[in-house]
Amino acid sequence: MELKTILKERSAAISRELEKYLPEEKGFQQIIFEAGNYSVRNGGKRLRPLLTECAYILCRNNGSQELSDAEMKAVFPIMAAMEMIHSSSLVHDDLPCMDNDTLRRGVPSTWAKFGEDFGTLAGDALMIYAFETASKSTADADKKLKCIEILAKKSGVYGMIGGQTLDVQLAGKAPSREQLEFIYKHKTGALIEASFMMGAVLAGADDSTVAALEEAADAIGMAFQIQDDILDVTSTAEELGKPIGSDEANNKITWLSFYGLEQSKKDVVAYTDKAVEIIKGIGDYEFLNELLISLIDRKF
Amino acid sequence: MELKTILKERSAAISRELEKYLPEEKGFQQIIFEAGNYSVRNGGKRLRPLLTECAYILCRNNGSQELSDAEMKAVFPIMAAMEMIHSSSLVHDDLPCMDNDTLRRGVPSTWAKFGEDFGTLAGDALMIYAFETASKSTADADKKLKCIEILAKKSGVYGMIGGQTLDVQLAGKAPSREQLEFIYKHKTGALIEASFMMGAVLAGADDSTVAALEEAADAIGMAFQIQDDILDVTSTAEELGKPIGSDEANNKITWLSFYGLEQSKKDVVAYTDKAVEIIKGIGDYEFLNELLISLIDRKF
Repeated sequence: MELKTILKERSAAISRELEKYLPEEKGFQQIIFEAGNYSVRNGGKRLRPLLTECAYILCRNNGSQELSDAEMKAVFPIMAAMEMIHSSSLVHDDLPCMDNDTLRRGVPSTWAKFGEDFGTLAGDALMIYAFETASKSTADADKKLKCIEILAKKSGVYGMIGGQTLDVQLAGKAPSREQLEFIYKHKTGALIEASFMMGAVLAGADDSTVAALEEAADAIGMAFQIQDDILDVTSTAEELGKPIGSDEANNKITWLSFYGLEQSKKDVVAYTDKAVEIIKGIGDYEFLNELLISLIDRKF
Repeated sequence: MELKTILKERSAAISRELEKYLPEEKGFQQIIFEAGNYSVRNGGKRLRPLLTECAYILCRNNGSQELSDAEMKAVFPIMAAMEMIHSSSLVHDDLPCMDNDTLRRGVPSTWAKFGEDFGTLAGDALMIYAFETASKSTADADKKLKCIEILAKKSGVYGMIGGQTLDVQLAGKAPSREQLEFIYKHKTGALIEASFMMGAVLAGADDSTVAALEEAADAIGMAFQIQDDILDVTSTAEELGKPIGSDEANNKITWLSFYGLEQSKKDVVAYTDKAVEIIKGIGDYEFLNELLISLIDRKF
């Protein structure tokens, strides 16, 4: 089967399983369940939970590429928690006081559909429900705690929210190289790091393996972001599925502004190679390598 | 020493200890550290963490009313996490799309000082940093996990955010008796319940004791809220330290609208007695009884 088809199926499987962890939409607070579930259901590729699952399979390294029912009960609540945190950040990013987006993936954004007050509360609700969901994992206490610690750290002020903060602060201003790299590594990279690290922790990987996967995830995040900048210049709108040339039109400072097109292309290759090398050093999971390369090339 | 003086000292001691758990205000994301710390520092009586500490002392029941240094390392991160969650909810409540308050305890509210975007992000940051802080507790893994689970549940859609949701939804409308009780029990009561429960869990209390303290906390929350409604009618502005008669002026539906003044006064006594009785059944901690009664009478 073609990789693209496999990936679509695995994303769909995650979306289906996720339903089991969404709250029932009833009671006096019904609207907040509706708004939260609406936000999670309007998901994309479920990339982050998929990366957690892949890191788990990689580190478990027992030849199988499936999770048993017992393993699903330990691993999936953590995958679901990751997706809820990701959703919460999109819900708040869309708010009028942030990016003021009324559309998200072609449908009304959460605040546009439920109002600004419930948009704010739905993001809050998902952020906290992520931790409630993570605590449902049947993994043993030490692994669960480690995952919760990683999730909080990588999504918080030293991770995603830290990156989002600088991005908001620099809106309309030109970032320095260091600031641009900080935004790439934190706003996007941090959750990819957490996804990988939590999968490794759940599989019982040692600290040095978890640290190696954190480094690999960091490289993946960088490759992904720089490729984004390159495609805005080199791709056609049809290939990319969104308008091209928008960075230049908006005078946006990107990786290319500092390093030029050729060096940026080399950087993508170098970061990708680094990630693939690290992963090969940990275990043998060909699907994960293909996934990463397709991700960076935007074939997923 | 007078109770009021002791309480002020204990609140101040919590505020001082809290400083150790606030992030350093440096780095590219400095503004979010500043906004978050500003919000936590503009705190009140530190009532919720104080209740956690009291429940811990009550359930430990070893005659001492102090925490050793080792106990502080286990208990205080959970107390700090509770206060951060509470702060985060106030920061978001003040936002223009919610209560639109520019002042909080006499100084600019977080969004009024740092802008609406960083007000939103600061609330998010505190909400997640609460879980990062909780994970710093040196309590053993099972107790810590139980606390994280309680904190998430009681602050989320089935707790505080659930109550806040109904409160926002009914703004300007008349709630039913059941809805009013739901708001009281969730918007305010849920965090008081969590405060008590986490203290008990950390002291190693069994499930039935934790459940009993949850019930006591629920009664305290109800007594506190109903007393609030009564004082708005019976108190003088000087006694209360804020304008009186505002509920009637705003046509606000309160406990008195349904039950009248005399029955409401009886309800406060009944709820308070219930809480005190439950607590006496668990252990002997006279200070906690005095604290609760002073809280409900607003002498704290």
